[in-house]
Amino acid sequence: MSATAAKHAFRLTDELAPIQAEISKHHDESLHRLQDWIKHPAIAAENRAMDEGCDYMARLAKDAGFQMTKRIDTDGHPAVFATYDAGAAKTFGLYYMYDVKQADPSEWSSPPFEARIVDKPGFGKVVMGRGAVNQKGPEAAFLGALHAIRAAGKKLPINLVLVAEGEEEIGSPHMRQITNHPEVMAALKKTVGVVMPAAWQDPDGNITVYLGAKGVVECELVADGAKWGRGPGIDVHSSNRARLDSPSFHLVQALATLVDDHGNPAIEGFGKEARSATSEQKQMLDKAAVTLSEETAKKLMHVKTWANDKSWRDSMDPFMFKPTVNIEGLVAGYTGPGGKTILPHRAVAKLDLRLVPDMTYEGALAQLRAHLAKRGFGDIEVTPSGGYDPTDTPFEAPLIQAQLAVARRAGIEPAVMPRLAGSYPGYAFTSAPLRLAAGHFGFGHGSGAHAPDEYFVIEPMNPSVADWDGAVASHVAYLFALAG
Amino acid sequence: MSATAAKHAFRLTDELAPIQAEISKHHDESLHRLQDWIKHPAIAAENRAMDEGCDYMARLAKDAGFQMTKRIDTDGHPAVFATYDAGAAKTFGLYYMYDVKQADPSEWSSPPFEARIVDKPGFGKVVMGRGAVNQKGPEAAFLGALHAIRAAGKKLPINLVLVAEGEEEIGSPHMRQITNHPEVMAALKKTVGVVMPAAWQDPDGNITVYLGAKGVVECELVADGAKWGRGPGIDVHSSNRARLDSPSFHLVQALATLVDDHGNPAIEGFGKEARSATSEQKQMLDKAAVTLSEETAKKLMHVKTWANDKSWRDSMDPFMFKPTVNIEGLVAGYTGPGGKTILPHRAVAKLDLRLVPDMTYEGALAQLRAHLAKRGFGDIEVTPSGGYDPTDTPFEAPLIQAQLAVARRAGIEPAVMPRLAGSYPGYAFTSAPLRLAAGHFGFGHGSGAHAPDEYFVIEPMNPSVADWDGAVASHVAYLFALAG
Repeated sequence: MSATAAKHAFRLTDELAPIQAEISKHHDESLHRLQDWIKHPAIAAENRAMDEGCDYMARLAKDAGFQMTKRIDTDGHPAVFATYDAGAAKTFGLYYMYDVKQADPSEWSSPPFEARIVDKPGFGKVVMGRGAVNQKGPEAAFLGALHAIRAAGKKLPINLVLVAEGEEEIGSPHMRQITNHPEVMAALKKTVGVVMPAAWQDPDGNITVYLGAKGVVECELVADGAKWGRGPGIDVHSSNRARLDSPSFHLVQALATLVDDHGNPAIEGFGKEARSATSEQKQMLDKAAVTLSEETAKKLMHVKTWANDKSWRDSMDPFMFKPTVNIEGLVAGYTGPGGKTILPHRAVAKLDLRLVPDMTYEGALAQLRAHLAKRGFGDIEVTPSGGYDPTDTPFEAPLIQAQLAVARRAGIEPAVMPRLAGSYPGYAFTSAPLRLAAGHFGFGHGSGAHAPDEYFVIEPMNPSVADWDGAVASHVAYLFALAG
Repeated sequence: MSATAAKHAFRLTDELAPIQAEISKHHDESLHRLQDWIKHPAIAAENRAMDEGCDYMARLAKDAGFQMTKRIDTDGHPAVFATYDAGAAKTFGLYYMYDVKQADPSEWSSPPFEARIVDKPGFGKVVMGRGAVNQKGPEAAFLGALHAIRAAGKKLPINLVLVAEGEEEIGSPHMRQITNHPEVMAALKKTVGVVMPAAWQDPDGNITVYLGAKGVVECELVADGAKWGRGPGIDVHSSNRARLDSPSFHLVQALATLVDDHGNPAIEGFGKEARSATSEQKQMLDKAAVTLSEETAKKLMHVKTWANDKSWRDSMDPFMFKPTVNIEGLVAGYTGPGGKTILPHRAVAKLDLRLVPDMTYEGALAQLRAHLAKRGFGDIEVTPSGGYDPTDTPFEAPLIQAQLAVARRAGIEPAVMPRLAGSYPGYAFTSAPLRLAAGHFGFGHGSGAHAPDEYFVIEPMNPSVADWDGAVASHVAYLFALAG
């Protein structure tokens, strides 16, 4: 098997050439599969079309060749469990999410659930819609790979186990219930590891391989006059501020203790379990700082300066090895145009804390609560809405080595990063009892996860970025590399 | 002239008895005048029906007997200037506002612009609607007084000058333009002072006379990554928090410096111009603490504890003599249900600062800006949306003495307070060049200004509170007391 990075493409050659031919032949069909999926959003946060989304996912798996599909009910929204027995020696696990993040159509230049093909200046033709890159685009590209292998009359080189949850965007609160299901657990145990399809190329075409992911705690902090026993129990005229405490300032003061003067985490004990970077990991970052473009990263985020005035290389240290304290959202009192002279009785902050090994979800939450209580903010309610532990996968894992091999054969030397700075519920696979390797893989580029105008590039202007067929082909190459 | 506080009423007797008869006879008419006015809201913050609101105000004045009404255009919304020449020796100034605060109907138990008569448990029958107490109710009661005097065939005992603005709820940004208008200025110069009709009884029936009002600065503080030059210039995935500064935490840290550990103002230099309480003023508070009910005040606001754990008497000191720093509203990033893992690029706080003599609007704003700049928050944009200086009126002013006289004749010994803890643009009357006395007056009870379910009591359960006709009658008594 072989592959080359042609202009605008990732193409399968030699013995995989017949599969490449089928990918090209069924280009429209596989792209429409993605577009139709985007048009059927399941949004756990809004309890929107979850049963339909689960059915849709099962049908996608069945159509792609999975012989067995099964709905797994949880205390929340259902998951899909599916197996594809190819009679192969090895088995490979897939982690899918069938839900997407909320979208406010008024913020989008193209309707989020119409999956239109639009020209994105500087990028090329893209499919724009909620889920385009997070995660339906890459997941549909993987399904396209299965369809193409079958259409070419080839045998799938490795058996598959699919776990598709519907609550990723609300913090995967029932992931353990899914993987603990006896049939799911038994099937996963046989795998060489679990991969989530991704669009892992940056706009320059670079590929990054991640050896794990940060964990996360998402939670709300609520200061309320009634609970606090100070300030008003209802919103009152702001003249009363002279004789009443302010729950909003109480929250502001609590939040201010969570970071130091430079904005770095200052929750007591937070991060003390963080493993130091190994010299191997440091070398990875030295290399990555050369491979990856600082300019591109800054441009994508409209950034002038890294935190703590770090260099590009040094900005990678906290990105990989430090936990974070972030304000996702803040809301209190009157938020419309102009002013309204009230003293609000309630103020809310939405936080996310990112965790590195060996920090844990439960530990971080306990540290946050203890920190607040110790500083006189014990009345502030901390309500977690989701999250999970960080993950780690060794560089030597066949799952990782196969990713490096595919990228190199395509002429790309990937950056290897100690971990993903984002989070996903891979802990359900990497921790006991499964202790599997886990990661992400896939060519192609997209961005805008959780933001308006989310996109996946279909016909890139940059020849170093895989087009849609190239993204599909990359999954074929990966399956054969894993099997080989 | 005379008046008595009968059960459920404030009633005119003796030579004013014929006016009382007309008040009763035209009860429905005068109440409907208020209800219809509430049904025609003018909301400056939303630029809603301002021309119509101005016309409506002028018509109300004309109908009540003002011979001359004139629209005064400003750089913002227009005002109404009107005069009522009764051929009397003295002239009395009236300050009206024809605009109301915004209202979100979903928060109201009765539609805010339908002015329904509803039963309010513990209070009696009330008219509920935006403006019921702030300020259309009391203003309509005053108009009812003029109608009743005329209907009784009595001569108005004092000439009137009316100034009605339409921007009170956005901080009266053009008040000076109105009072500086040559005709308005000339007319106001002849007055014994300026009063704003009010519903000054608390639920217990107590009356408070205020010798001035606090000033206010309303402003927005905006932290923005682009302006700051740190953090993202757009909302980005929150994993980037590890390498990017957070404009939200930047704002939180800035806000935290505005108060001390106890939540008291800590803006550098803020309040250094505050005049100390005189021994006369302290005695006023000693008396007020006895006259006014702590329990009632706490119950109205759902409050357990005064700030700094002060006693009822001591809570009045900061209420009267200290400036405040209040958060009216806070907003950043995602504020919907659940979480959304973004690092917001922008965070906004809406503040109001209350000022006491001799602080000034311009001075306080300059102190806030200097404070922020000195502490490394110079990038945070401070945008004022309105405000004005504090006011002072001497206890000896005939305007004040007439209020005391009316209350005492009705059997109520009023509390006298050094000032109102709230604010209104009375500085336009009390400062140079006019230097007039100014205050508020009116019987009756209402509450909920700026909040949902704003109300004015029409048929009180508590016999010590004036009913609608009593509120109207109190203005008749006041006019005759002022003239006498």
